[in-house]
Amino acid sequence: MTSGRFIAFEGGEGMGKSTQARMLADALEARGVSTCLTREPGGTSGAEAIRGLLLDPPGEGWTKEAEALLFAAARADHVARLIRPALEEGRWVVCDRFLDSSRAYQGAGGGLGDKTVRELHAIGSDGLLPDITLVIDAEAAEVDRRLTERDGGFSDAIGGRAAEYHASVNAAFRDFAVKEPDRFALIDGSGSMEDVHARVLHALSPLFVESH
Amino acid sequence: MTSGRFIAFEGGEGMGKSTQARMLADALEARGVSTCLTREPGGTSGAEAIRGLLLDPPGEGWTKEAEALLFAAARADHVARLIRPALEEGRWVVCDRFLDSSRAYQGAGGGLGDKTVRELHAIGSDGLLPDITLVIDAEAAEVDRRLTERDGGFSDAIGGRAAEYHASVNAAFRDFAVKEPDRFALIDGSGSMEDVHARVLHALSPLFVESH
Repeated sequence: MTSGRFIAFEGGEGMGKSTQARMLADALEARGVSTCLTREPGGTSGAEAIRGLLLDPPGEGWTKEAEALLFAAARADHVARLIRPALEEGRWVVCDRFLDSSRAYQGAGGGLGDKTVRELHAIGSDGLLPDITLVIDAEAAEVDRRLTERDGGFSDAIGGRAAEYHASVNAAFRDFAVKEPDRFALIDGSGSMEDVHARVLHALSPLFVESH
Repeated sequence: MTSGRFIAFEGGEGMGKSTQARMLADALEARGVSTCLTREPGGTSGAEAIRGLLLDPPGEGWTKEAEALLFAAARADHVARLIRPALEEGRWVVCDRFLDSSRAYQGAGGGLGDKTVRELHAIGSDGLLPDITLVIDAEAAEVDRRLTERDGGFSDAIGGRAAEYHASVNAAFRDFAVKEPDRFALIDGSGSMEDVHARVLHALSPLFVESH
């Protein structure tokens, strides 16, 4: 049996990542591909417990260093207990956020630096990378409208940070996609869910050819 | 105002570290030294929440990588929110376990390696080291008797590991003390609490001379 494929969705808040991840997983299952849909931070019972600490910090809030270490710990559990075993069984893994979120949020937005985030990933998860990472990008005005509809103004400890923080996160995602075109595809997130889903399937077509 | 002093107690399970840390803090306060008694993992509300995940893992148990990342995250919070501020106020910090426990348990006992544990400490806590680290060491037979009396055979996720794991942890602590005599003092943990306390005060006498 060949190893499965690992696809990650990335992008800032309100880009429609979770919706697109679910639509992709459904489409893969409909093609007869055994698929594991998961998310970060979380995806395993250990990592979900860490997610709780990250989104609702028990103290005065984590320093950027502690936050990056907790994300790396959650990812290490997720990779060891769910992602690697699924790939080894030949399943496809569709993950809502992965390493590049830590690079964009803690590395770029939080100022910890890319080298440090990558070191933590090398230690925690032996540097595992997705086969392809889809960065969804949309206009700020459209994103603001979606976030207001979805959360009614309520945010967690990370989503609720200042607008400049989120702007630098979004810029970092675009920058990753431009600098490493082999590893990333930049997806236009405007229009309906179905429009975006069609763009996602188009971006993944090389993967379907390879594996059939 | 001069900076405070940072003293850590280290050693395997049942060496009497917590008792000695409390006796030392009391002795320092009796000499008029403002002292902060704390412990790891824990010491702050964030780090105590991580302690809960470490000692009672929600999933099938942490991989050695995830465990080391969680310890480093707890330590980063503890250093940033409690230890550094206390030292900057001129207080003395007495800590029951610190970095060298991660080196002995995850680095040596768990096989993660010393370099990785030190890298995580550099990232999380800018590599902060105690002024002096007291390693308490006692005969295995005496330790077994104390642990049975104290815990009645009950252990947490780390204390309950195999005897060989704990033997390699204890060997690592002795090795640290031998290799870096300027940073460590090896304390004979045999005899009464008062006997050991007298040895602790004797080992710290250079620190008292320097600061008075």
